[in-house]
Amino acid sequence: MNASDAKNLPIGVFDSGVGGLTVLKAIRDEMPKENLVYLGDTARLPYGTKSPTSISRYACQATALLQQNDIKLLVVACNTASAVALEVLREQMAPLPVIGVVQPGASAAVAARPQGRHLVLATEATVRLGAYRSALLDLDADASVTELACELLVSLAEEGWNDSSIAESIVLRYLAELDAESRQPDSVILGCTHFPLLRDTFASVFDGDVSIVDSASTTAAAARQLLAGSSLCNDQAGAGRLELLATDGATRFARVGGQFLGHDLSANDVTLVDL
Amino acid sequence: MNASDAKNLPIGVFDSGVGGLTVLKAIRDEMPKENLVYLGDTARLPYGTKSPTSISRYACQATALLQQNDIKLLVVACNTASAVALEVLREQMAPLPVIGVVQPGASAAVAARPQGRHLVLATEATVRLGAYRSALLDLDADASVTELACELLVSLAEEGWNDSSIAESIVLRYLAELDAESRQPDSVILGCTHFPLLRDTFASVFDGDVSIVDSASTTAAAARQLLAGSSLCNDQAGAGRLELLATDGATRFARVGGQFLGHDLSANDVTLVDL
Repeated sequence: MNASDAKNLPIGVFDSGVGGLTVLKAIRDEMPKENLVYLGDTARLPYGTKSPTSISRYACQATALLQQNDIKLLVVACNTASAVALEVLREQMAPLPVIGVVQPGASAAVAARPQGRHLVLATEATVRLGAYRSALLDLDADASVTELACELLVSLAEEGWNDSSIAESIVLRYLAELDAESRQPDSVILGCTHFPLLRDTFASVFDGDVSIVDSASTTAAAARQLLAGSSLCNDQAGAGRLELLATDGATRFARVGGQFLGHDLSANDVTLVDL
Repeated sequence: MNASDAKNLPIGVFDSGVGGLTVLKAIRDEMPKENLVYLGDTARLPYGTKSPTSISRYACQATALLQQNDIKLLVVACNTASAVALEVLREQMAPLPVIGVVQPGASAAVAARPQGRHLVLATEATVRLGAYRSALLDLDADASVTELACELLVSLAEEGWNDSSIAESIVLRYLAELDAESRQPDSVILGCTHFPLLRDTFASVFDGDVSIVDSASTTAAAARQLLAGSSLCNDQAGAGRLELLATDGATRFARVGGQFLGHDLSANDVTLVDL
């Protein structure tokens, strides 16, 4: 393959459902000339409540499809899969580079608030696995980390009730589970791809001095850096194509996914694939 | 098999996850001497957002396992599977009797409020399929039916925030989508197995004259009637065993399921099975 063909290959973005579209959107905002192919394993979502064994098996099956499609980079835009299956996926995809969402988010939080108190909001599985805790402490042994599972915010974001008083009440109720110090962190890491949609709610709940780090924009920045380093950034006119694949429910994918992507989708924009 | 052995066979209860435990609990309350085996297809939940084809395939695979286990009756304690796959399951399980949750709920609502205005609260898939609408109108051509998808209440019940002001706010926000007449029904049908947990919230939101029909207790009553008719009711001393099977996540099943069942469970109470 010549250099021009290689540049033209799409970035593959994988998630268990539609949440990873916030990462896809951030990648598109950051690198509008990249071709993108997104795969949401909607037939088997949510990964967040499943066992590590199932999550790894599903993630490997799904990303094998993207591998067959020829991509130049795999972005695992699913916190749960990034926490559980990143090493397994790197082995499977080698020599293709693989970026997860945990490491970029943790790096950004540590850079913003060295020796800080970090509050990670995530799904139950991500919290249980402690992936952000490990990543943060590896980067900054003086950091302190609290992880809080906020499962209900996933459904809330999918319902589109993002800036409502209900959203604020739910966030406050989750925070009430914490001690006073953990409730006043230096950084809040949005450790679930759905949560960037609730950014305004978090901004109103937390003090203005709190750094709110979302995994979507930090992962997009990491993808840009990696491609720039390998001279694989696409700069070709006419590029910037987007292909959306899902394993089930094109209608729902389009309706909910449109909110995540920031523009309307129809079921015809989504190709169903069988794993 | 002699009559005593046949009576002693368990009732099989199938759901996509833990929600069907509200039905299991109602069956146990109604018939404490029945042996029960519950299968939650937690690896593939939620069915509510999946396509009819996937729902049917999953339901058939899962219930085939219960069939191999020797049961005397299958209760499909999942509104989505009852709406989509009941006929297919009856064919597969024949001559074993199969009861879904839609028909008993619809019958109870029509009996309570003839020619009434019925409001069905359910998941997106159940609403999309219009199963309650069909069942109600088949029973009472003068009934009027409004169906409302309340996806967020499923996560709310799993979080255990059942009698909170948040629960009430969410129900009121969903109701605000309806016209004034539909908001004041004669009966409210809880068309999702999770919703009996929110019964107090519904009771406080709706006027005292509204009949609140839950699919759990109506289905348990239908199961008792059916077994009484076939002389298969278990009356043997020492019976009343409960076996819990799940396809994934025993720990979460135990934690969330305990709330649904009304007593604590540990992961050791749950047997993982592979479909």
